[in-house]
Amino acid sequence: MQRWKLTVEYDGRPFVGWQRQDNGPSVQQSVEEAVFRLSGETVRVHGSGRTDAGVHALGQVCHFDLAKEFTGLKLRDALNFHLKPAPIAVREVEAVDERFHARLTSIGRSYIYRIVNRRAPLALDAGRAWHVTRPLDAEAMHDAAQVLVGQHDFTSFRAALCQAKSPVKTLDRLAVERVDEEIRIHAAARSFLHHQVRNMVGSLELVGSGKWTADDLRAALEARDRSKAGPTCPPDGLYFVAARY
Amino acid sequence: MQRWKLTVEYDGRPFVGWQRQDNGPSVQQSVEEAVFRLSGETVRVHGSGRTDAGVHALGQVCHFDLAKEFTGLKLRDALNFHLKPAPIAVREVEAVDERFHARLTSIGRSYIYRIVNRRAPLALDAGRAWHVTRPLDAEAMHDAAQVLVGQHDFTSFRAALCQAKSPVKTLDRLAVERVDEEIRIHAAARSFLHHQVRNMVGSLELVGSGKWTADDLRAALEARDRSKAGPTCPPDGLYFVAARY
Repeated sequence: MQRWKLTVEYDGRPFVGWQRQDNGPSVQQSVEEAVFRLSGETVRVHGSGRTDAGVHALGQVCHFDLAKEFTGLKLRDALNFHLKPAPIAVREVEAVDERFHARLTSIGRSYIYRIVNRRAPLALDAGRAWHVTRPLDAEAMHDAAQVLVGQHDFTSFRAALCQAKSPVKTLDRLAVERVDEEIRIHAAARSFLHHQVRNMVGSLELVGSGKWTADDLRAALEARDRSKAGPTCPPDGLYFVAARY
Repeated sequence: MQRWKLTVEYDGRPFVGWQRQDNGPSVQQSVEEAVFRLSGETVRVHGSGRTDAGVHALGQVCHFDLAKEFTGLKLRDALNFHLKPAPIAVREVEAVDERFHARLTSIGRSYIYRIVNRRAPLALDAGRAWHVTRPLDAEAMHDAAQVLVGQHDFTSFRAALCQAKSPVKTLDRLAVERVDEEIRIHAAARSFLHHQVRNMVGSLELVGSGKWTADDLRAALEARDRSKAGPTCPPDGLYFVAARY
């Protein structure tokens, strides 16, 4: 058996999310079926982290074990062939030893969240960014975001369904920059709670539009109460960028 | 009558192109129908330039005349409302005087062409960039591109169907840059021949992949013969960026 590590890009729109579910196509299932079509082997594909329905990936990482022998390049091309026409692309394939585990041995995940901040609707970025019409102050968002960086109890930014044992996480980076009419939020941590990025962005939008101050954000964090933080923003703008090992 | 100038973004994939045609939906027809729905007036919308099927726009400019009175902001919002669900967004609306003509008074057009240069297929950029798998040397492409800058007879890069009176055009800028796995080609001129940008990019790809030198590109230009230049590249990567007045 050989363990294979994949780096995968996908457009999240047609999927119920990364994880297999009964109610529609998932990325995990698509990859597992492609592996079956090229090898005849039924494998379980393990991702570095789940992404919700509509969330995209530039560099999701996953692994699986295969008995049939391949070279990495051959496996990548064959997977991409069998994934068609799903909007999933295997960017890299690497043979790894059995100590590697996409979820358990990852030491860092990073995301980007894209907001397009303008009055006009989105033509080219529909489903690919959050459309916010009221003017946002990206500098105020960035300054307030630093309140969340570091080790905290993130209960206020955690989905009710979150399965993590502890709400305490260490956020390494939360940076907000404006590039013309687009606002990009970069988030990095060893791991995140369910909906944590989207819930943090939902609160940062309140800061950007002037409804909240940085102190309001701090109070929301310290309340350890989901109802005290901002709304969950849409999945459209969220991209899983990379997992580190 | 008030003349209105619009700046329009669109995803070119579902359209037969900018111009009205019998064989499918066009951007021009979509805008004309939206104007009719909000005003009851049948107008002719004039674009600054045609775009082919599958070509996108960040800032196409067009104009039309309307008897009914509006403010610019009201007109923009109403147009965007009536354009739904087509992937067309009116970014800006400006009242202009009757001497303004989107095509005839434009003094400059600019385009970007996006190539994603990697082995893996495109998931997020499918239909939005040209996927080239063989490695391209962007620096060599940029250097060779300078052969085309200036006033030339561009017959070698002109579509057979081109309606321009003269094949002589002045290319103000043709710059090639690599940003990670993406190659961006910036083109600017007072006006372009039909397919000129796509035909120039098709030849630059030959340079980038090492099949052609800058001298080959110069020979193709000087031949004034379409068959001596490279192929027409796909519409997917082409974006109409802006028109100047």
